Amino acid sequence: MTGEFAQATAVERRDDGAYAAEIAPGWDILGNANGGYTLAIAARAMADAAGRPPLGITGHHLAPAKVGPCTVEVTVQRAGRRMATVSAVVRAGGTDLMAVLGTFGDQVESGPTLVTAAAPDLPPIEKCVRTVPPSFGSDFGDRIDVRARPEDAGFREGRPSGRAEVAGWFRFADDHPVDAFGLVQVADAFAPTVFNAPDVPVSWAPTLDLTVHIRGVPAPGPLRCRFRSAVIQGGLFEEDGEMWDSRGVLVAQSRQLALVPRA
Amino acid sequence: MTGEFAQATAVERRDDGAYAAEIAPGWDILGNANGGYTLAIAARAMADAAGRPPLGITGHHLAPAKVGPCTVEVTVQRAGRRMATVSAVVRAGGTDLMAVLGTFGDQVESGPTLVTAAAPDLPPIEKCVRTVPPSFGSDFGDRIDVRARPEDAGFREGRPSGRAEVAGWFRFADDHPVDAFGLVQVADAFAPTVFNAPDVPVSWAPTLDLTVHIRGVPAPGPLRCRFRSAVIQGGLFEEDGEMWDSRGVLVAQSRQLALVPRA
Repeated sequence: MTGEFAQATAVERRDDGAYAAEIAPGWDILGNANGGYTLAIAARAMADAAGRPPLGITGHHLAPAKVGPCTVEVTVQRAGRRMATVSAVVRAGGTDLMAVLGTFGDQVESGPTLVTAAAPDLPPIEKCVRTVPPSFGSDFGDRIDVRARPEDAGFREGRPSGRAEVAGWFRFADDHPVDAFGLVQVADAFAPTVFNAPDVPVSWAPTLDLTVHIRGVPAPGPLRCRFRSAVIQGGLFEEDGEMWDSRGVLVAQSRQLALVPRA
Repeated sequence: MTGEFAQATAVERRDDGAYAAEIAPGWDILGNANGGYTLAIAARAMADAAGRPPLGITGHHLAPAKVGPCTVEVTVQRAGRRMATVSAVVRAGGTDLMAVLGTFGDQVESGPTLVTAAAPDLPPIEKCVRTVPPSFGSDFGDRIDVRARPEDAGFREGRPSGRAEVAGWFRFADDHPVDAFGLVQVADAFAPTVFNAPDVPVSWAPTLDLTVHIRGVPAPGPLRCRFRSAVIQGGLFEEDGEMWDSRGVLVAQSRQLALVPRA
């Protein structure tokens, strides 16, 4: 059975080598498709061209993506023995939506292991708070089930925690397992960290670039996620994400640079 | 007066819109040009095409860069009011060396500030240790003056600290001020963090992708830098860098994904 996310990010290779896809309804916030969702569509096309799953992918937003058909123009920059480098542009109706660059290759299990990061402590998923409520101007909250720690969700009632951090659980609403493409979605599914910073309005925080590094193959089950910003200054903030699976393995890291919302 | 680095990364716009540059001798390790150096050449060409300095730039290595002429083919993907998105490929002798994607725009000084990161404690520069000695198979150590904290430099004598971290000072050997392009170089100038991890050989650690976010305009003086890896697994490690200026302002952040060296 194919999950909702896999269906909504499916791509089809055309005869001219470009990929046709559909920006599906319900993966948007206020009419603009979520950036992680659009990046996942690009990742699928690039992975197909590379014949390998994503290891690291960077997307730069060019224009808001609206529901409807789009194409992904893919260029394999280099195909090596273990890895391939691929660039892409997502287009719709003559407008470029996103420029993408990525490395594709299989995960390996060997090599030394040293992990000093730790998965966030989270209350059970049913004690956490949906930060994308189904009523939030879109059906995105019916597609993904994102639940923040209660102390990180107070911004919804005007009580930001004061720390630029959001941690919580992620699963798809249909509970379909999260694969490498799903991790690209997870990296952009939580509320912006700056919603919990003092003196930052809860408003649009446009992403300039988003990089997701896939560090493992997730085991089934909800993911523990934490997003943090160490430096908010000059109208910009970085947001670093960690995604941990049910075994306690770090399966993805993300970083984005975004604009601090304005009142 | 132009500094050595500015000279060695100069680009010239040709009539066809591409940029001609020269991979200069002395910016290599064992014959391969440093990745931050090559990325800085690309950044200069892209910034010229965008008419703005870099805010964020990601480079993916395609092939080792050797001393000699190269070209940077630049495509302005989008030019907005405040920012432009630009892609580029660095080529030499028919070989693609690096694929690059970046956002270009001026730093702004306004907006809320919340900084929870802190500059590393470092001994005075003269008590720190050159990790790129002038004798290291190249003149790179005569171009950049990188000095690690003594406890982070023990790997050179087979005494890794056991923590995947390297902190220290950066300045150009000619003491020319570090600008936005210089920060791109700084982000890839220190020894790999994994040299201080247990059971990792001190050997080639090829970078897959390197992202540098420029977060401020550096004040004159040496930069305090810290590079850390939280997750070494599956043959890969991420390396996060912070660069702080003499005022104590974080002026750049970097992240790269690289291959763990093999014996």
